[in-house]
Amino acid sequence: MQSLQQKASEWSGVDPNDAFAIDETNLFEKLGLQTFINLSTNFYNRVYDDEEEWFRSIFSNSSKEDAIRNQYEFFVQRMGGPPLYSERKGHPALIGRHRPFPVTHKAADRWLQHMQQALDSVTDIDEDCKIKMMNFFRHTAFFLVAGDELKNQNQSVACKHAANKPAAE
Amino acid sequence: MQSLQQKASEWSGVDPNDAFAIDETNLFEKLGLQTFINLSTNFYNRVYDDEEEWFRSIFSNSSKEDAIRNQYEFFVQRMGGPPLYSERKGHPALIGRHRPFPVTHKAADRWLQHMQQALDSVTDIDEDCKIKMMNFFRHTAFFLVAGDELKNQNQSVACKHAANKPAAE
Repeated sequence: MQSLQQKASEWSGVDPNDAFAIDETNLFEKLGLQTFINLSTNFYNRVYDDEEEWFRSIFSNSSKEDAIRNQYEFFVQRMGGPPLYSERKGHPALIGRHRPFPVTHKAADRWLQHMQQALDSVTDIDEDCKIKMMNFFRHTAFFLVAGDELKNQNQSVACKHAANKPAAE
Repeated sequence: MQSLQQKASEWSGVDPNDAFAIDETNLFEKLGLQTFINLSTNFYNRVYDDEEEWFRSIFSNSSKEDAIRNQYEFFVQRMGGPPLYSERKGHPALIGRHRPFPVTHKAADRWLQHMQQALDSVTDIDEDCKIKMMNFFRHTAFFLVAGDELKNQNQSVACKHAANKPAAE
């Protein structure tokens, strides 16, 4: 069976070495907190204004402010800054926390499209950082698609077990 | 609804500030790679020799060598060392990767009992590090119990949906 990492690489076209090249430099020290806040604000402005209702609705249970904060705190923590996310919310647990959402290939593609535009709109992110971050985002998006498929496998197994039991049980 | 972090704190008795006090010092720089390898080796020697079959069997689909490496690479990465785990396996995704296992309160307690004994057996871990690590482990163990409960909720919802559909669909 293919691992999550293998699926993420195959579907995203990003080799793990390129995905985790964010660890070669401290991107937080290079960019600073405000740039991460600007990036996530720009990104979620696009997401919450998306003309595609199917995509916009994935985020409808969170306020835009919460979504922005959750995202930049995670990025800051993962890219060399203080562990803001864990202090407030615990482990990132990326697959677990995305469990309520339909993370399909199509949704990953649209997420990445908005993120590429956000990266291109925010000043102070040089080309090298942009490439590193985009490779990380692309690989991670499809890692989560792979995680979402696990969920469906588990559910169908559980339902089959449930269906084989007497109704009164 | 209680968050994962809140449940983890309530069940473990460990405040998030204490759980993530591992981030106050660089434990990897303090302890070094070999100490982490020794800790995980000592821990899994106990687990794979556990007299309780229900607990030992949770780990039966992995080789002890893989279990040891997965664990110390994650600990090293999370406690200030190089991102060994992500380079090889991708995001830790703690809840997602524990999905196949029955992470119950009872299993968390037994895991922690072995880990406390392993921490006490391995030399070169001073009292301050031990306390920080044990708080992190305790909180994380119950964070995963909370993650495991989410899985059961999702499955019963999915099964109800499935049960309401015509059988031929």
